[in-house]
Amino acid sequence: MADDVLKTISISDMENIALGGAFLGTGGGGDPYIGKLMAEEAIQKNGPVTVLNVDDIPDDGLVVPVAMMGAPTVMLEKLPQGNEAISALEALQSYLGKKTDAVFCIEAGGLNSTIPIAVAAQAKLPIVDGDGMGRAFPELQMVSMTMHNIKACPMVMADEKGNSLVLNTVDNLSTEKFARVITVEMGGVGLIALYPMTGAEAKKSILRGSLSLINNIGRIIHSEQKENRNPANFLKDKLKGVVLFEGRVMDVDRRTEGGFAKGSCKILGLEKYSGKEISLEFQNEFLLAKSKDNTPIAMTPDLICLLDLETGQPITTEQIRYGFRVLVFGLSCDPQWRTKHGLELVGPKYFGYDYTYTPIEDLN
Amino acid sequence: MADDVLKTISISDMENIALGGAFLGTGGGGDPYIGKLMAEEAIQKNGPVTVLNVDDIPDDGLVVPVAMMGAPTVMLEKLPQGNEAISALEALQSYLGKKTDAVFCIEAGGLNSTIPIAVAAQAKLPIVDGDGMGRAFPELQMVSMTMHNIKACPMVMADEKGNSLVLNTVDNLSTEKFARVITVEMGGVGLIALYPMTGAEAKKSILRGSLSLINNIGRIIHSEQKENRNPANFLKDKLKGVVLFEGRVMDVDRRTEGGFAKGSCKILGLEKYSGKEISLEFQNEFLLAKSKDNTPIAMTPDLICLLDLETGQPITTEQIRYGFRVLVFGLSCDPQWRTKHGLELVGPKYFGYDYTYTPIEDLN
Repeated sequence: MADDVLKTISISDMENIALGGAFLGTGGGGDPYIGKLMAEEAIQKNGPVTVLNVDDIPDDGLVVPVAMMGAPTVMLEKLPQGNEAISALEALQSYLGKKTDAVFCIEAGGLNSTIPIAVAAQAKLPIVDGDGMGRAFPELQMVSMTMHNIKACPMVMADEKGNSLVLNTVDNLSTEKFARVITVEMGGVGLIALYPMTGAEAKKSILRGSLSLINNIGRIIHSEQKENRNPANFLKDKLKGVVLFEGRVMDVDRRTEGGFAKGSCKILGLEKYSGKEISLEFQNEFLLAKSKDNTPIAMTPDLICLLDLETGQPITTEQIRYGFRVLVFGLSCDPQWRTKHGLELVGPKYFGYDYTYTPIEDLN
Repeated sequence: MADDVLKTISISDMENIALGGAFLGTGGGGDPYIGKLMAEEAIQKNGPVTVLNVDDIPDDGLVVPVAMMGAPTVMLEKLPQGNEAISALEALQSYLGKKTDAVFCIEAGGLNSTIPIAVAAQAKLPIVDGDGMGRAFPELQMVSMTMHNIKACPMVMADEKGNSLVLNTVDNLSTEKFARVITVEMGGVGLIALYPMTGAEAKKSILRGSLSLINNIGRIIHSEQKENRNPANFLKDKLKGVVLFEGRVMDVDRRTEGGFAKGSCKILGLEKYSGKEISLEFQNEFLLAKSKDNTPIAMTPDLICLLDLETGQPITTEQIRYGFRVLVFGLSCDPQWRTKHGLELVGPKYFGYDYTYTPIEDLN
């Protein structure tokens, strides 16, 4: 997708970014709406946010992703106060004894594609046009940085009550494990600043252009919605994606477990899919789509995105419910995720699904 | 109890300190034996540890208790590597940007009466003759420091794998809650450095003379054991305690739950208690002794200590089992615990026992 490269983010950009973020969030990462409001308020106060190409950061600069961690189901009910993320960033800076030169999004999806913009505006820092996943994933070691041996620690977690913790763990999987139980103790949601890295490390590790991509996707969805067209066809061509299924949600089984929103949903085919049925498995994000006879249609790390057929709006795993008419859209993941290390981190087996990874292009 | 004031701790003192610590541990705080071995090794290497009266510390000096946190049942199986406690202390110093002037025991019982001696020897620091409880309690906000508004944070936790965390919470109860889930994630046990305080704060808050008391109790138990006499009578006079019961353990119900060793045990009377039955409730420590008709005999914060009638040895809640012939010994707690604030922190109701606190002197 060529299109525009984002240079600054103004209030008027936030609508598209939130839309695109919800789409690339593959159902997870939380509803970008809360982060959008926070970003709009901060931009209103401090002016537009500068978007940097990662190559423009000095090699010895400090780059830090900020994010919200926890179950999206909880985020809907436990709104952030607004200063937790900046508290986390400030605590990390104070721990490191260094000022941050730029923030970025740990994932290119959901709330975590809008929260860092709010933080950037609040802290008057630029944001890097890139992220660590090229989508959303549920655990914090699941980032390109892990594949480049960049440590998640020191990591800071903060909550709305004023609690904050600095983690220093032996590896990124341990960081996830400690951070997860702390998130649960925080009431299900915590704000985090982690993976502090140099500009040089950012250049070699982060996935580039994510904010521009999100913005472009959001713009397409937005303009197609305006024309009362479903954005699927347009996105399919633009993103080289594939429409996997169209149907009505018949059954949703969802539980909040160990700080995750886990579950599955059944979708009964409509139109050309009539008579067919698929199910989607999720752990914050949609991770597996399979037909009734368990034949996989798409699997993690490839992207499974849901669009509401009535509104063209992306649907998150915590919003999905009985009766929704949905379009299931598939997208190829970043090639890094298809390597041995990538699949160990985010392949179907890691999540407990007994499938050998097959690229979405080969399945459809 | 008048007796000797401890001035230095040599290898030859460790036996008595471990014994006295097991007694004042009221069944909890973990078996002092592991800490004793660690302390002996460190003293062997670095020489005896100086014991300081708290008044000898400059008002602006830094005083830090170090301890092991977790379920004693786990501590028996998951031995410390030896450097976790010193790692925790060093991480705290580095976070504060200050050197420690003296360490002390957070509780006057169990493993946590010997571990700090090992740390003092390793770090070549003096240890203060005092503690925060005058006994052992299961949670970390249950210290005299909390009653003097001294914060547990910044607190550092470290494990044997090399993970370490710095906590900064809004109050000491929150510190306990976060530290507890982290302890569970650490595998049930963590080493901690917390309540960093000035000499002035230590002077007003900590309970004095605990190490000397532990040493004297241990000496009595030791010398009575040598003469094949049960130390109970001697201790009763020396400590103004009361023998609550004598009997045989009939039933032990124990589980490790949320990082605690919880349960109860039934004791059937022997000798003058023949025909009677009492039960003891514990959460790491013995917290409630009651007769069969639920009449309380002793309750937290007063001390309930068990001695093996065969050996005169204190018995911990994780060691107690069917068939043990035991003597149940009661001791009045420090007067601070009997204030309103004290009873809110450690009274029977906090632990879920539906009794109004009555001093042990009034119950017996």
